[in-house]
Amino acid sequence: MEELKFVEKLLLSVSDYICKQYLNKKDLKISTKKHANDLLTEVDVNVQQMLVKSIKEQYPNDLIVGEESGLDEVIDTKNKRAWVLDPIDGTQNFVRGLFPLFGVSIGFVVNERPEVAGIIFPVTKEVFLAKRGGGAFHNGKRIKVSQTSSLSNSRIDFDMGALDKRDSIIKTTTKLAGKVGQIRSFACAVMGFCQVANGEQDAYICFSLNPWDVAAGMLIVEEAGGIVSSLSEEITSPFDSDKICVISNAKLHKLCIDNLT
Amino acid sequence: MEELKFVEKLLLSVSDYICKQYLNKKDLKISTKKHANDLLTEVDVNVQQMLVKSIKEQYPNDLIVGEESGLDEVIDTKNKRAWVLDPIDGTQNFVRGLFPLFGVSIGFVVNERPEVAGIIFPVTKEVFLAKRGGGAFHNGKRIKVSQTSSLSNSRIDFDMGALDKRDSIIKTTTKLAGKVGQIRSFACAVMGFCQVANGEQDAYICFSLNPWDVAAGMLIVEEAGGIVSSLSEEITSPFDSDKICVISNAKLHKLCIDNLT
Repeated sequence: MEELKFVEKLLLSVSDYICKQYLNKKDLKISTKKHANDLLTEVDVNVQQMLVKSIKEQYPNDLIVGEESGLDEVIDTKNKRAWVLDPIDGTQNFVRGLFPLFGVSIGFVVNERPEVAGIIFPVTKEVFLAKRGGGAFHNGKRIKVSQTSSLSNSRIDFDMGALDKRDSIIKTTTKLAGKVGQIRSFACAVMGFCQVANGEQDAYICFSLNPWDVAAGMLIVEEAGGIVSSLSEEITSPFDSDKICVISNAKLHKLCIDNLT
Repeated sequence: MEELKFVEKLLLSVSDYICKQYLNKKDLKISTKKHANDLLTEVDVNVQQMLVKSIKEQYPNDLIVGEESGLDEVIDTKNKRAWVLDPIDGTQNFVRGLFPLFGVSIGFVVNERPEVAGIIFPVTKEVFLAKRGGGAFHNGKRIKVSQTSSLSNSRIDFDMGALDKRDSIIKTTTKLAGKVGQIRSFACAVMGFCQVANGEQDAYICFSLNPWDVAAGMLIVEEAGGIVSSLSEEITSPFDSDKICVISNAKLHKLCIDNLT
């Protein structure tokens, strides 16, 4: 099966299970990982197992990198095919919140470069897909980044991160935050990427991302005409995800970087 | 008709129209009000007209205060019955964004004190209702604020406001933002109030609100066990809305105020 079709099928295959669990989230078993706000639910684990099982059946020789269940060590993927998975990006929003601001992310990476990407927001069934050189799509419709070119007219999503890095994030973002027309913080990387890609947001500023947060999103943004880079404007691989900081509609990219201190 | 029933009926009566317009939002006529990011759509105006018409038929002698169409002057409501309306709170989110993070707010105020309140999130049909002394309800179920009592475990929504007040907002909020476990900015006052009321968020920090942003939300939060106050812990009337700054689950109220500078 062609990888893009497979990604779409995979995303849809886990969507109903996630919706059902979301509606019954009051009964969920929740544990913490690194700190009190780094949550893990049984849904994260089960969705990853479902994805891994399907990938192993379809592509038994490919590598798999995922957020949960011991797949979160970054392995050597040079010259290899790898599937990079985030079963639930935005677990905090899954557990608390009026709106289902979380998604599933699947990036198919060859020799460290994303070639195929898919993200689904299960409750609203919003599907984002991209293939290198083939454009980015939202529910089957081609998408493009916004044309906003001034900070005062822009809407930017700032990911304020966890408490252990907060002071440094505040210091880095304060100058830019003082110039942006509209500020949002949705605290969900796949929302950050997809809203820049479909032009509903002009940039997403983030820190300390993991490979599974970015492997799909960065290709979707790039295929929609946007830029994903480090603070030094370097375009990185998803395996250098901790350097990724500015995701923008391209027109605002330099302005964002110049105002991050 | 009893006012609480009337509010619920009113909210449901405009919901289908708003959903239809939201699905076709690409064709909307949008103009700006005070500044580039202060948007007005035909939906804001039409919904307000629908609400005003129904209120005038049901309660012809009551006063009406609303965000749009010349009803936005704060009139003398002492010893009077008044309906305080926001047809779409979160117009920016209505116009741009993957999720429908906007709501309709109706507060029924007697002698400057909210007596009955209703908020609907039309696309997801989430309805919040409250009556003074009768508790707060979300889709018919009684709601309570959260029990979170430490900032490091808390999730707080910061409204970063418009650009003309941004520097002052950043200055006031930086110390608190440095101590909060999870930061969000949804930029929708009714979401701020309702998420505190139903325990999905621990506090909402905001500035420069208008009477129509708060008239319903403050009663819903108070009836769920939360506190709405100014920076000096003074409980205000919806007509002193510009003083309202901290909406919390009560347990975190003093900690929030002590860390706003």
